Amino acid sequence: MTTVGILGGGQLARMLALAGAPLGVRFLVVDSVADACASQVAPLLKADWRDFDALEEFARRIDVATFDFENVPAETAQWLTDHTRVFPNPQALAIAQDRLAEKTLFREVGLDTPAFAAVDSQSDLEKALESIGYPAVLKTRRLGYDGKGQFRIRSAADIAPAWQALGRVPLILEAFVPFEREVSVVAVRSREGEFRAYPLTQNWHADGILSMSLAPAPDSEALAPQAFALARKLAERLDYVGTFALELFVHDGRLLGNEMAPRVHNSGHWTIEGAPSSQFENHVRAVLGLPLGDTSALGLSVMFNWIGTMPPARPVLAEARAHWHDYGKEPRDGRKVGHATLCAMTREEMAERLERVARELGRETQAAPVLDVLKRA
Amino acid sequence: MTTVGILGGGQLARMLALAGAPLGVRFLVVDSVADACASQVAPLLKADWRDFDALEEFARRIDVATFDFENVPAETAQWLTDHTRVFPNPQALAIAQDRLAEKTLFREVGLDTPAFAAVDSQSDLEKALESIGYPAVLKTRRLGYDGKGQFRIRSAADIAPAWQALGRVPLILEAFVPFEREVSVVAVRSREGEFRAYPLTQNWHADGILSMSLAPAPDSEALAPQAFALARKLAERLDYVGTFALELFVHDGRLLGNEMAPRVHNSGHWTIEGAPSSQFENHVRAVLGLPLGDTSALGLSVMFNWIGTMPPARPVLAEARAHWHDYGKEPRDGRKVGHATLCAMTREEMAERLERVARELGRETQAAPVLDVLKRA
Repeated sequence: MTTVGILGGGQLARMLALAGAPLGVRFLVVDSVADACASQVAPLLKADWRDFDALEEFARRIDVATFDFENVPAETAQWLTDHTRVFPNPQALAIAQDRLAEKTLFREVGLDTPAFAAVDSQSDLEKALESIGYPAVLKTRRLGYDGKGQFRIRSAADIAPAWQALGRVPLILEAFVPFEREVSVVAVRSREGEFRAYPLTQNWHADGILSMSLAPAPDSEALAPQAFALARKLAERLDYVGTFALELFVHDGRLLGNEMAPRVHNSGHWTIEGAPSSQFENHVRAVLGLPLGDTSALGLSVMFNWIGTMPPARPVLAEARAHWHDYGKEPRDGRKVGHATLCAMTREEMAERLERVARELGRETQAAPVLDVLKRA
Repeated sequence: MTTVGILGGGQLARMLALAGAPLGVRFLVVDSVADACASQVAPLLKADWRDFDALEEFARRIDVATFDFENVPAETAQWLTDHTRVFPNPQALAIAQDRLAEKTLFREVGLDTPAFAAVDSQSDLEKALESIGYPAVLKTRRLGYDGKGQFRIRSAADIAPAWQALGRVPLILEAFVPFEREVSVVAVRSREGEFRAYPLTQNWHADGILSMSLAPAPDSEALAPQAFALARKLAERLDYVGTFALELFVHDGRLLGNEMAPRVHNSGHWTIEGAPSSQFENHVRAVLGLPLGDTSALGLSVMFNWIGTMPPARPVLAEARAHWHDYGKEPRDGRKVGHATLCAMTREEMAERLERVARELGRETQAAPVLDVLKRA
């Protein structure tokens, strides 16, 4: 029996293990927290990222390693490749970990990005602002996610506070783009180079964290072929194996690269029920060298993200084609604790379900932008 | 967090745990075999059915108990109800365990059955054969499954061998019915009495073990309402809570009751991908008192059962809307080790996929009766 090792034991590892089990695959999760939520569905080895004795045991017990967490130290990822097969490869991980390298690569493959500049000093920041202009966003190059490690600069008065807040690590300044919408490509590439993408997903964030997704993104027929071609080029350049997400802004009808996540992605959670083979199953298939599964959409899907605490489940469970995902985590401010997916065959049917669920959960504000799109479209 | 205890750690427990995890439910499995296949996805407590010390620990660690195995001793099920909540109730289990009680109940709710008679001696058998005639099937009243504990009697010459083979336990003689087809109702009843049925499933057996299923059963519009009404009456009579299956023969266009399985059922495995909420998720919802999920069909589904050993996965994995289930069990003659489900929106599309998969796996014989029905229908 094949065992897949996963670095990181959060909800992504949990959903990977649940999706991979029917393939007859076993999992072993490594995490520094013994009761990380994936441990409820797969054995967990408690270890820090630099505990190489524990990692040696991990490598010995598995056939292939992958990640639920992209910020694994490069040193750890590299050590692992010397001891077992690792997908995606650590070079791909390293590029996706660094906003500067990532955006540079985006441009190399022909994906436009907001204007950006490396910032290593306050004078770099001042110079960068002269060319990029206001507003702009100062971000840490590494270890940022869910809006963490970011500072919005509206005027020169924000320069000193921004530098003070973030200036201890390598930074990047990015132009603030007043985009019309955000979409993501969730795609998978096999060990043999086969590439498949799910239909484009439209996303909405709140406080820097994904709040809602709608797939397939309405009126995206014109954008999708270009988005898929760019995602494919990126994956090929990185010799990427597994599922990844490419987040894009749509501005004046053009695509701009925001960031790439070298792993299964929150904006692809709808694929568990909304597609024949989910992003999780396809990641497992890819890292094992199995044929990729069907990435078409089974109608429309809307995902609610649950941040901090779980709302009551009943209003969702009582709905047709509605799916509940409680990650088994303790509530905590800003923490992703679960999600729900609604599926429907038509926009009208979806709007009706979404409206009812949002009302019963008191989540009208969260659902409003999706309802707008469904009703307008 | 709620913990569901499952008596029996086979593939049904495994699929219950995989389906229930997204609901935020934990599982604890009890089995006499430490590496029973459910232990790969949920903690397992090793204990025999009559180890009441271990069962006490089991009851203490769970919120509600259920079964992956209907032949749990009545004494154990009863002991459990004194220590925790148990669904389905042990009386329902006891009736479904006994072919005589079961068939008697079928008739009470208006479901016809093949002629039957209790047999406790060879002279009982001889008398029963006089009224029922040849051919007939002698079966153990209890502990029979997958064709085990059965003896077909074609003529008087078979009486002595049949009695010798089975005559140490209470028996039942049943008329052999030359049925046109076998269908099953897979249905679920909630703690509040809500009842939902999946579309009728058509089944084919080989050597007494389920071989193929097709759902929704073609041309079953006339039979389905009656089948569902009978299943509902049965469930209400038993105050049944959870998923169950009612196996029916269709003979001269009439329904005859064959048997009831008081648990999730092999003929409902297609619901994992072929319905919005699977029989497994709905069983978990029911035993926890949650609203029942959507039991409609998402197109057509065909299930291949894998008996003894797993065939190669690739021909299935390479197909669109095709799903692989390897239970993680060691190969063994006659053992259910996995299944595969193909889904499609039309009969033509299904026939094409099924034919290709069957050919590549060398399973043309197994798939032939389903292809016949798809092409004829």
